[in-house]
Amino acid sequence: MKKVFFTPGPSELFFTYADHFRMAMKDQVGSISHRSTDFEIIFQHTTTQIGQLLNLPPSYRVVFAASATEIWERSAQNLITNSSHHFIHGAFGGKFHQVAKNWGKETQLTQIENEFEPTKSEADFIALTMNETSTGFQHHADDLVAMRKLNPDALISLDIVSSVPGISVDFSQVDSAFLSVQKCFGMPAGLGIWIVNDRAIEVANTMGQKSYHSLPSLIEHADKNQTPSTPNVLNIYLLGKIAEDMNRRGMRAIQIETNYKAALLYQTLASHPSFELAISTKHHRSKTTIVANCRDGNHNILNHLSEKGMIIGEGYADQKESQIRVANFPAHSKEQVELLCDALENLS
Amino acid sequence: MKKVFFTPGPSELFFTYADHFRMAMKDQVGSISHRSTDFEIIFQHTTTQIGQLLNLPPSYRVVFAASATEIWERSAQNLITNSSHHFIHGAFGGKFHQVAKNWGKETQLTQIENEFEPTKSEADFIALTMNETSTGFQHHADDLVAMRKLNPDALISLDIVSSVPGISVDFSQVDSAFLSVQKCFGMPAGLGIWIVNDRAIEVANTMGQKSYHSLPSLIEHADKNQTPSTPNVLNIYLLGKIAEDMNRRGMRAIQIETNYKAALLYQTLASHPSFELAISTKHHRSKTTIVANCRDGNHNILNHLSEKGMIIGEGYADQKESQIRVANFPAHSKEQVELLCDALENLS
Repeated sequence: MKKVFFTPGPSELFFTYADHFRMAMKDQVGSISHRSTDFEIIFQHTTTQIGQLLNLPPSYRVVFAASATEIWERSAQNLITNSSHHFIHGAFGGKFHQVAKNWGKETQLTQIENEFEPTKSEADFIALTMNETSTGFQHHADDLVAMRKLNPDALISLDIVSSVPGISVDFSQVDSAFLSVQKCFGMPAGLGIWIVNDRAIEVANTMGQKSYHSLPSLIEHADKNQTPSTPNVLNIYLLGKIAEDMNRRGMRAIQIETNYKAALLYQTLASHPSFELAISTKHHRSKTTIVANCRDGNHNILNHLSEKGMIIGEGYADQKESQIRVANFPAHSKEQVELLCDALENLS
Repeated sequence: MKKVFFTPGPSELFFTYADHFRMAMKDQVGSISHRSTDFEIIFQHTTTQIGQLLNLPPSYRVVFAASATEIWERSAQNLITNSSHHFIHGAFGGKFHQVAKNWGKETQLTQIENEFEPTKSEADFIALTMNETSTGFQHHADDLVAMRKLNPDALISLDIVSSVPGISVDFSQVDSAFLSVQKCFGMPAGLGIWIVNDRAIEVANTMGQKSYHSLPSLIEHADKNQTPSTPNVLNIYLLGKIAEDMNRRGMRAIQIETNYKAALLYQTLASHPSFELAISTKHHRSKTTIVANCRDGNHNILNHLSEKGMIIGEGYADQKESQIRVANFPAHSKEQVELLCDALENLS
């Protein structure tokens, strides 16, 4: 039985992924040199489509890494001059804090509870997580505006791993942002996307970090539509094709659908006696990662849905058996989400 | 027109790649969580098949990175305690030397000319390149034995990027070895394979490097058939399937065919007035990367072959227009190589 994956990434593949892969095989994209003009055309196409899709301001650049985890490390190496301040609501924000610490940075941690309090920080680098995939907490767009206003001199970094393009982000409020393709782009894992502006690049140039994947090296190669080492060429090609499909459809349509599906899921879970929504503050409930506490554990729920061919996520770490996490990505159709909600409603 | 890529990687895809990809889509490998049992089964299958294919001694471990370039960096961070000695014949050996320097190591460089001289080194880490893809120089198996004998206390690292499984390597002579899948495994780029023994792991444990991709972290996760961050799951799956196909065929058969195709290519090039073999010492001529100087530049040759649907490599860097490089990987059939040799013979 063909399953539908509502797991919070890797997740369901985008509708058009398989067709684009077939075309890639026909065009022998898996065999072309990453130093060829063919590759440069692919690189330029993909970065242009991403820029258009996310409505990036002109001074913002798009480069590639292996994963969002790698970009935590590259951020610590290239963008945190001395100190970083991490505002976290769960495990992934916390992991970035740990990476900064591992690289010898002076770090500060603020745990977000029910409500986010915009804060003036002394750090030269501020890390926010637009959508905390482990807990289902989502920042409000106003949070970014307020943080920028209070901290005009700091670099602001935004984890958008499970956010865009399902959620709209105003990139002019941040200097660095990163994601991986196995979430909202509906692709197999193995590619991270790093978006940086001129301020971030300037800091990185001053720091002079010497990794093959330093930000200056990534930018220097991107200037030629190239990468410092042999990248995941196929995923860069497929990302460009999927971003093009999404541009054709329009971000507004994708986000309206995301909102509709999220409302349906929250309504279903809130009105069911077996569940309680995990995030109490309504405007911080994630549109892309819906999390609920299960009054009697998630075991029977996961099994029941799995028998119907629907795979949802268990809770993260300590909540492994007590929560469910449901991904609501652009690859999940309205019909699939409606079927999932029916199945949830009919849980005994 | 479907082309045949004889480029030295990315190159022609292995015969069975497309079929395995179709099966991966059917089994939804692109959607499974890298923290699931399904992934652990894939990880175990792939590392087991690689171990069997390369005849790895029992204490040797297989872990994954994004590329061979990343493994240069991880080697510098985890395995070079103080000093490294790089024996190089071309650009890729030289790049590893530069990476070690960038990470603050005391480095020494020995340029190999026509013949390799086994040397006793004072360094704690010795870097050799089994097959230098930029020049077509290949070490003889005896070189490894001699280096090990002269340097019993140093860690010996072997770049096998374009070597295995086309060329046989005795892994008991080295402590660390690395490759990427877009060469002899005939796969799209985006995955590096790192092979280490217990001595290498012990050094890395002592160094206590704190990257998310430190060797101790890679090993700790591999103990559970996992990876520290979301990897290129699809490529790990496909690598396992292709390694399984190669095991079924047998390393001996693959290497006999590699030798036959190499002999044919060298014979064709040596007897043609337009070419001169780039490596003068016969036993250092690569079996997998055949390099020749072109008396009148490579422009017309590349064009002529391209019109026939055969894409071969140009020379590397300074030799870009004056040499050709022809990959002879397991994905290149005898028939394809024979057709290429016919086309080379008929060059005006």
